[in-house]
Amino acid sequence: MMKQDIRVEFTSAKKPKPDPHDLAFGRIFTDHMFVMDYDADQGWYDPRIIPYQSISMDPAAMVYHYGQTVFEGLKAYVTKDQEVLLFRPEKNMERLNQSNDRLCIPLIDEELVLEGLKQLVAIDKDWIPKAEGTSLYIRPFIIATEPFLGVAASHTYKLFIILSPVGSYYKEGIKPVKIAVENEFVRAVKGGTGNAKTAGNYASSLKAQQVAEEKGFSQVLWLDGIEKKYIEEVGSMNIFFKISGEIVTPELNGSILEGITRNSVITLLKHWGLTVSERKISIDEIIQAHRDGRLEETFGTGTAAVISPVGELIWNDESLVIGSGETGEISKKLYDTITGIQKGAEADVFGWTTEVASLSETK
Amino acid sequence: MMKQDIRVEFTSAKKPKPDPHDLAFGRIFTDHMFVMDYDADQGWYDPRIIPYQSISMDPAAMVYHYGQTVFEGLKAYVTKDQEVLLFRPEKNMERLNQSNDRLCIPLIDEELVLEGLKQLVAIDKDWIPKAEGTSLYIRPFIIATEPFLGVAASHTYKLFIILSPVGSYYKEGIKPVKIAVENEFVRAVKGGTGNAKTAGNYASSLKAQQVAEEKGFSQVLWLDGIEKKYIEEVGSMNIFFKISGEIVTPELNGSILEGITRNSVITLLKHWGLTVSERKISIDEIIQAHRDGRLEETFGTGTAAVISPVGELIWNDESLVIGSGETGEISKKLYDTITGIQKGAEADVFGWTTEVASLSETK
Ligand SMILES: Cc1ncc(COP(=O)(O)O)c(C=O)c1O
Ligand SMILES: Cc1ncc(COP(=O)(O)O)c(C=O)c1O
Repeated sequence: MMKQDIRVEFTSAKKPKPDPHDLAFGRIFTDHMFVMDYDADQGWYDPRIIPYQSISMDPAAMVYHYGQTVFEGLKAYVTKDQEVLLFRPEKNMERLNQSNDRLCIPLIDEELVLEGLKQLVAIDKDWIPKAEGTSLYIRPFIIATEPFLGVAASHTYKLFIILSPVGSYYKEGIKPVKIAVENEFVRAVKGGTGNAKTAGNYASSLKAQQVAEEKGFSQVLWLDGIEKKYIEEVGSMNIFFKISGEIVTPELNGSILEGITRNSVITLLKHWGLTVSERKISIDEIIQAHRDGRLEETFGTGTAAVISPVGELIWNDESLVIGSGETGEISKKLYDTITGIQKGAEADVFGWTTEVASLSETK
Repeated sequence: MMKQDIRVEFTSAKKPKPDPHDLAFGRIFTDHMFVMDYDADQGWYDPRIIPYQSISMDPAAMVYHYGQTVFEGLKAYVTKDQEVLLFRPEKNMERLNQSNDRLCIPLIDEELVLEGLKQLVAIDKDWIPKAEGTSLYIRPFIIATEPFLGVAASHTYKLFIILSPVGSYYKEGIKPVKIAVENEFVRAVKGGTGNAKTAGNYASSLKAQQVAEEKGFSQVLWLDGIEKKYIEEVGSMNIFFKISGEIVTPELNGSILEGITRNSVITLLKHWGLTVSERKISIDEIIQAHRDGRLEETFGTGTAAVISPVGELIWNDESLVIGSGETGEISKKLYDTITGIQKGAEADVFGWTTEVASLSETK
């Protein structure tokens, strides 16, 4: 595609920044957003950074009816030297296009959108919180905008990037969670959209999540939709187990999301000389390993929590307490290493970070 | 729930009506729409009919990200006596609430929304086209509106009803279609959202539909997601087969939509003294029946086409021509009877129609 200029329109009314000690997740948004349009004649056109504002669309816009939409999630971090870093953002662009392909949405120019994302973060850099564990959450998303009630791919789309300063996932230090193995509801199945980051996967997960929360569990562990036997992933995390020293995680089978944290974890573990297998893992295998005292660690991986140790798994009425409910050694080391790289405190041997701005330079 | 008044604000700028001979599906909308809001304090509140207008929402509104949305589809018809009839609208309200339940959306007062729907159709009754086969398509839908990027049920919603005058599905008389049996992609699976009318099901169907259209087929026939063996339904229709005189249709198994036309067809067939079975039907059974010359008819059922005879099924590279590619006797009789009832030309023995307005009375 041809190189396109990104036009910038600054806001004339900057919003007050939130109290940095009182940040939640995904409720407060910055002063600007990135927008780009698509139509069949022009392709993706008019990339621009404009003041954060409402979206106004016809009630017949296809996204409201048929859910033709995809999204991404990544974060910007401030280092101790006041540099603003992104963590593997090109991976998110790549995955956005994989999702686009599955949802029949026209592919984006990954470089152009990444450039827009970087410029946006640089413009709103004063919004990035600096305290331990805080960051700027970045949400690119695409929606089908054609006002048409037929079930077909839209002929027009809009891409947005919005930014939200977010608090620490672990307010009192990294803490293991309780996760329920889901027996009734199914998130995704081979041939469906499980490996795309698209709205419907999350809509279909709400019911199971609600039931789990009522019972005091933080998330559900999904099993495969075909045999309800093989482990897939958690709400918005991939999952890893350490069994008799071997680290295992479900293979990419078409129905789980290919997490970027998952990929970073596998790379790091191998780099440390540990054995990692991507393969089918049945829930029976996990239960048996637990009974035999061989289930040493369990943890989830995802952008929000980075590493989320699992202290207890609930399967029907059976409770499997893992590692006395404490954070395991590997979980801790992965968490420290990845957050260290993200915050510029650990050597970035894999070239995972990209600097987009500095808070110390006078703009 | 308490009875609520529906407030009405008329448009001051009526739009020109479309050429009745040139109506497509779902591209033109009438002068007004019904809207109602939900929040946790007030429940569903402020039901109102207002001028048709854009929806303006925060870019973080949950529907854009997590697809928490449901919809319905039904039609209003004009009889030869100029009466406006709805066909089993209470069934659509019931199904909307079933979908709400699956998607963790607060239930609606079915009577209130049906009352709003009727008033809306009455107000925009001049938009209902009168020619053979034309009708007014009615689209109720609910979207999650809370500006929040966490994966959870929204705390606020909007319900809309919009209206679209639509042309005849069969411009040159009822005509059999070619349908491809889908082998790769899956629409829904038990434990998922297949039996709810929600966005994600349609988003996930686009890819298969696109491939089928490129090959010259009008729709795909979905198989179950578990064994890829049992017949489920077509894009937006349920499916029926007549084999050696017996009429069969897939049972309601949790992954197919419970079509209202399907229900009407079963009722009519039984009323006529025919045998109808709701059961599992494997694709092998259909192929074998065809080879043995026992597959007498195949047809889809849905609000859009009412009855859509299938003239040819494609399974891998095998083509199954059904009834020499002509419309079968049962298909024809069902089509004539149901459209007759809808248009007030046939006796409505089951009490399926509801009058909402008359075009002859001076308003
Ligand atoms: C369903 C699902 N699985 C896994 C992940 C983890 O992916 P990542 O590590 O790229 O954040 C996410 C979150 O993005 C997700 O939504
Ligand atoms: C997936 C699906 N199946 C079946 C149907 C047929 O249902 P109905 O007869 O109520 O229109 C529809 C259309 O509403 C549909 O979307």
